[in-house]
Amino acid sequence: MSAETARIVSFSYGVFAMTITFMVLDLNIAGNGAGRLASSLVRQWPSYAAFTLSFAFIGIMWINHHRLFTHIRRSSNALLVLNLLLLFGITVVPFPTAVLAAYLRTGDARPAALLYNGTYFVIAVLFNLLWQYSVRAGLLDPASAAAAEKISQQYSYGPLFYLICLGVAWISASASLALNCALAIFFALPPHVATSLKKPNAGMAR
Amino acid sequence: MSAETARIVSFSYGVFAMTITFMVLDLNIAGNGAGRLASSLVRQWPSYAAFTLSFAFIGIMWINHHRLFTHIRRSSNALLVLNLLLLFGITVVPFPTAVLAAYLRTGDARPAALLYNGTYFVIAVLFNLLWQYSVRAGLLDPASAAAAEKISQQYSYGPLFYLICLGVAWISASASLALNCALAIFFALPPHVATSLKKPNAGMAR
Amino acid sequence: MSAETARIVSFSYGVFAMTITFMVLDLNIAGNGAGRLASSLVRQWPSYAAFTLSFAFIGIMWINHHRLFTHIRRSSNALLVLNLLLLFGITVVPFPTAVLAAYLRTGDARPAALLYNGTYFVIAVLFNLLWQYSVRAGLLDPASAAAAEKISQQYSYGPLFYLICLGVAWISASASLALNCALAIFFALPPHVATSLKKPNAGMAR
Amino acid sequence: MSAETARIVSFSYGVFAMTITFMVLDLNIAGNGAGRLASSLVRQWPSYAAFTLSFAFIGIMWINHHRLFTHIRRSSNALLVLNLLLLFGITVVPFPTAVLAAYLRTGDARPAALLYNGTYFVIAVLFNLLWQYSVRAGLLDPASAAAAEKISQQYSYGPLFYLICLGVAWISASASLALNCALAIFFALPPHVATSLKKPNAGMAR
Repeated sequence: MSAETARIVSFSYGVFAMTITFMVLDLNIAGNGAGRLASSLVRQWPSYAAFTLSFAFIGIMWINHHRLFTHIRRSSNALLVLNLLLLFGITVVPFPTAVLAAYLRTGDARPAALLYNGTYFVIAVLFNLLWQYSVRAGLLDPASAAAAEKISQQYSYGPLFYLICLGVAWISASASLALNCALAIFFALPPHVATSLKKPNAGMAR
Repeated sequence: MSAETARIVSFSYGVFAMTITFMVLDLNIAGNGAGRLASSLVRQWPSYAAFTLSFAFIGIMWINHHRLFTHIRRSSNALLVLNLLLLFGITVVPFPTAVLAAYLRTGDARPAALLYNGTYFVIAVLFNLLWQYSVRAGLLDPASAAAAEKISQQYSYGPLFYLICLGVAWISASASLALNCALAIFFALPPHVATSLKKPNAGMAR
Repeated sequence: MSAETARIVSFSYGVFAMTITFMVLDLNIAGNGAGRLASSLVRQWPSYAAFTLSFAFIGIMWINHHRLFTHIRRSSNALLVLNLLLLFGITVVPFPTAVLAAYLRTGDARPAALLYNGTYFVIAVLFNLLWQYSVRAGLLDPASAAAAEKISQQYSYGPLFYLICLGVAWISASASLALNCALAIFFALPPHVATSLKKPNAGMAR
Repeated sequence: MSAETARIVSFSYGVFAMTITFMVLDLNIAGNGAGRLASSLVRQWPSYAAFTLSFAFIGIMWINHHRLFTHIRRSSNALLVLNLLLLFGITVVPFPTAVLAAYLRTGDARPAALLYNGTYFVIAVLFNLLWQYSVRAGLLDPASAAAAEKISQQYSYGPLFYLICLGVAWISASASLALNCALAIFFALPPHVATSLKKPNAGMAR
């Protein structure tokens, strides 16, 4: 990594660290004097689950950003702007998450789930833009060609998958959340594992 | 970049990352039980627009800071102080932004817009001070002479342009905001592109 | 340290810095108009004590993370995930701390102390997982073998000790807090000192 | 700087960046509907002045930390702990600042000013501890001997000066604030300039 991409990474990781740590502020001290603490803590499980999921999702986005910048060796003005756009998507995540946590079990679950999944769709597109640009502009380490190819394959599924999630969210907010978890695990996997998951299908077609 | 300027950059990027991420805290979860979520989200567009604009403006300031420190290779006590002054300006930005978002469509739009544009004028002056000092004190990488010249040209327009914005804000808050967006794009452009934008005018004079 | 582990460290330290600084936000300006400031400041000592303890505990966790990554030279996908899990535990700390501070002198001291000590037990397990994995996956600097052995010894006591704390918390919240302080000092000690503290016992057994 | 001190610096700068940026959160949007924005902004000058002073003071502490770690080349367990103690002092600063801003013009100005100056006295002691330890433990770059001597001289005045401030605060909160500003400028000066300020006095004695 050059000194310049190292600095882009340093700023980006600051933004990731801020965003992932901010969300703990939304956890309220349970048991507001009325009931007993233990049962009150148990009753608040949805907000703890939302916090845990968001941490996991932003953590996985960090892993992906980390992975991309292992291969990106040079910088350019367009890279700075594309990276800022991606960071914009990251910092926004806590907002639709809070909306979803507040509305998941109300009559407004559908718009909340659409907003939530829409955010993830946009982030998937921005990850692809950053990566495709870096590949085409020749910003990658020449030694990364094989690994980069695997990443391109894994990422190419992203926008389509998240578009499907968005469609599912129209029908069932809960089902779209479950799909989201599956997708998060898919993108947490190292690219060579994730793309080999697809191999059986390719094999079946033969 | 020397180890010492690398440390200045590391601190500065922490401040930029904090400032740019803080603003998402101002986004409220829409639909306070009374209305329907979807329409309530739509109604809140001005606060989303303000958040997006601020992110873009601080992001562009980060790009500029990043660009300057690509050329600055040595440090000095005065550089530390000038950089702190600039960071002071950056951390202040969310405050006039929130004031403008709250007052843009009220009878107090003028003082809000003056405060907002005044902040940007001061930041433009501080960017110029930091850069002009670095050039004159010989802190730049000798290999950067040509690129530095382009930056000096681009930056020399800054204070004047933002002073004009300030004047426009006296007449129309909205017009000054539009001018601000145009200026942000001008400073997001790489210096050799930004300065060549001026060429056609020079050409027409011939 | 390779460039890649340096980047993991940079992100992790951002999360540590955020978490340790956040807690000052919980300090209220004393003397809400009614009483006199001086006596009001004195009366608030429990919240100052809680802030100081949390800072010390998270600071000691940072020292431990810092120590581990002095020896870890290579990265892997599993390391990224285990490090994220550990950071999750760290960012959570302010929450059980605030709960304990609010309930320590009420009838709900027991569930508050169980939650608090449970968090520390989980963090001790996560530290062990991260370290044991790094040792077995061969991610350590070969020159670190002797120092690594000492760390493994010191860490092997962690989960058991914190499990004992959890048991003590069932009987007395205050006693478990005192034990916690003793353990924090044990893990603040450099590994070669901490493990030699055990030597006398071994000697007595001979 | 070794890789290990670079990591200490990276964590420390994260804490500095957080602390210095946090304070902008205390600025309220002026003009709560009742009065006119412009006059309301003017009326709030004390909170803007407090924000500016705190930014300047923490900024100058950062410059000093930065200066010390330009010379510190090796690390040790004691250095980690002393640095954490100093960072504890830094993160605390916003609290006594907010107390002073709230009580400066009330009958409780004295305890507020004592708390404020007491914090600065403790920080001055911690800076001296960190530096004296580093000098005696041989952690400095051998090439830094002359510069280090100047720093030791400048720092040796710190605790005494801040103790005097503390005494002045007993008599007049405003006068102690003015002294604080003078001291901040003294510690912002590069050590060779600051120590030569003392020379004239020594000369007058001849």
